[in-house]
Amino acid sequence: MTSGNSAVIPAFTFERLAQCGTTKARTGRFHTPHGIVETPRFMPVGTVGTIKGLTPQQVESVGAQMILANTYHLHLQPGEDLVKAAGGLHRFMNWSQPILTDSGGFQVFSLSKLRKISEEGVIFRSPRDGRMIDFTPERSIQIQNALGSDVIMAFDECPPYPATRSQIRESTDRTYRWLQRCISAHERPTEQALFGIVQGGVYPDLRREAAESLVQLDLPGYAIGGVSVGEPAPLIHDIVNNTAPFLPENKLRYLMGVGTYREIAVAIAAGMDVFDCVIPTRLGRHGAALVQGERWNLKNARFKEDFSSLDETCSCYCCENFSRAYLNHLLKVKEMLGYILISLHNVAELIRFTQEIRDAIERDRFAVEFAHWLN
Amino acid sequence: MTSGNSAVIPAFTFERLAQCGTTKARTGRFHTPHGIVETPRFMPVGTVGTIKGLTPQQVESVGAQMILANTYHLHLQPGEDLVKAAGGLHRFMNWSQPILTDSGGFQVFSLSKLRKISEEGVIFRSPRDGRMIDFTPERSIQIQNALGSDVIMAFDECPPYPATRSQIRESTDRTYRWLQRCISAHERPTEQALFGIVQGGVYPDLRREAAESLVQLDLPGYAIGGVSVGEPAPLIHDIVNNTAPFLPENKLRYLMGVGTYREIAVAIAAGMDVFDCVIPTRLGRHGAALVQGERWNLKNARFKEDFSSLDETCSCYCCENFSRAYLNHLLKVKEMLGYILISLHNVAELIRFTQEIRDAIERDRFAVEFAHWLN
Repeated sequence: MTSGNSAVIPAFTFERLAQCGTTKARTGRFHTPHGIVETPRFMPVGTVGTIKGLTPQQVESVGAQMILANTYHLHLQPGEDLVKAAGGLHRFMNWSQPILTDSGGFQVFSLSKLRKISEEGVIFRSPRDGRMIDFTPERSIQIQNALGSDVIMAFDECPPYPATRSQIRESTDRTYRWLQRCISAHERPTEQALFGIVQGGVYPDLRREAAESLVQLDLPGYAIGGVSVGEPAPLIHDIVNNTAPFLPENKLRYLMGVGTYREIAVAIAAGMDVFDCVIPTRLGRHGAALVQGERWNLKNARFKEDFSSLDETCSCYCCENFSRAYLNHLLKVKEMLGYILISLHNVAELIRFTQEIRDAIERDRFAVEFAHWLN
Repeated sequence: MTSGNSAVIPAFTFERLAQCGTTKARTGRFHTPHGIVETPRFMPVGTVGTIKGLTPQQVESVGAQMILANTYHLHLQPGEDLVKAAGGLHRFMNWSQPILTDSGGFQVFSLSKLRKISEEGVIFRSPRDGRMIDFTPERSIQIQNALGSDVIMAFDECPPYPATRSQIRESTDRTYRWLQRCISAHERPTEQALFGIVQGGVYPDLRREAAESLVQLDLPGYAIGGVSVGEPAPLIHDIVNNTAPFLPENKLRYLMGVGTYREIAVAIAAGMDVFDCVIPTRLGRHGAALVQGERWNLKNARFKEDFSSLDETCSCYCCENFSRAYLNHLLKVKEMLGYILISLHNVAELIRFTQEIRDAIERDRFAVEFAHWLN
């Protein structure tokens, strides 16, 4: 964490640094009350207040800066009041760098059953204890105000793919009205930046419209949502390429839920700055490693007697100390350490990927060195 | 690890340092090719080449010196040939300090089905792939020679409790004959110390006899085995008190499979030096913490809003950075980090317990300060 300069620059400033000469890619520094986020950068996901399987020390050791946590999950357990009583989410989970919380919108729409959507909000049945829970824009912001994350997200309606144009229009319009209610409900604007989310499905004109109306509100940052909801990868590229140009250049731009090499590279080329995804830890728990752009199943017999490092170019604790054969062994006997080490490497790998892109942009070599991901 | 002096003192020397004025407790330093073990000391168990849930870095951070691994488990998976090809167990699992391997005796007798015991050895069905496996004294030593641990254990017959006097006599006599075969089979005596195991069940005269015949063989160290095999705790104390006096004072004395506060304290008072048990990590995986001599179930609702450190007197990573409320939360949502942090603390706690006894012996205050564990 390099927070040295953040005292003199107002919180939530996005400092633009280098600009790629070929693509829209840029590097920057996003200032928060808990330090700086150097962009482009991948953000690991700590759903219920823990990056699955990893200690905060380990997450920090691989260069994580801003991490995510989920409003929906933390509301269900342990509840925002408890987190607030603990001194806020940073202290509760022992993460001293920036935290971004999502709004719960995506989870309410993707995980909960028996939901009823109205103009007021969403009512759904808690998967934990069966009781009916109300989520409204106001409630989501109130919860995030209690959690105390540095970036909070507007409560949006997040329709799955495919959806008709009229469904998407209705939902995008409602998301905009909900955003206005989020802004009114937000009680800690100097400590927490409220980001708006551009929806609009796969319809470029609806995306553009949504982006333009959000920009009018002069929010401290913008996200593209409603991607990675079931649509094919080429559509993700189209959505990002058709939406990013309408987001302001002097604000942080966040592409939600994307964590694959190609989609990250394409989005950076379109001018996006930060990314989050559960992929690295989820793959880790299944014994799959992200190595040099590929996915390897370390349970595979070809690693049984492979005494080389998982990735000799990687400086994470896993790669510096253990062999593929040892990881293969741990997976065979279902030992936790296997999942831990591979998760750690995978998080390290995606952060390093974005850091290497950052370095390449600074040297104006991004379009050349990452051409295989962009074409 | 303080290996500075070990170069000038021959490997497997047990240096006696302080002697308690009241009990038989003593402090010492056991020298191995991978550094020194300061005694008394608890040794964490890494059955298949990993202390469950913890990285070697974490295990080292709580003061572990010698750790255990299991010959039986490592033979089944990944196999000793693979470990040897990896450069030995230290390198395979990335543990640079001393390692002790058990002989597989206890596991063959307690874990495997369909076993047939003869003078030659034991034949049992592999729980992994169903094939029949032969374990003999020679085979156990050959495997341990391949693993390359600093201390290797003789292959013994380990009858469960209760057993008749004649069963125990027969088994103890056979264990002695097997020990002689182990000594003959051992091919790396300058690099690996072969310890004998005193059996004899709950019969003091058989224990004494067994100890006295083992001592004749002038081995580099001695263990008391066949405890914690189902007998009540008071019988453990009796066995240790009746056996330890017949073990040489100038050799390391190891009480196998014991890891509770009281039994460790009583055994140290009887002159035992090192101890191992799976308890700290097993309890950790069940959400139970060892705190100041007690066992706490951290899932209990009383910890829900308890924002204090698990043990404010403990300096482990868990206690220095997280609250009981956070651990309670992690357990409720079944997050790996909960098991990891509590396992780490539990290992730290038992090592600290033996380290505090060590300090007390040096000040000749052991009998007074630990009186509540000894009476």
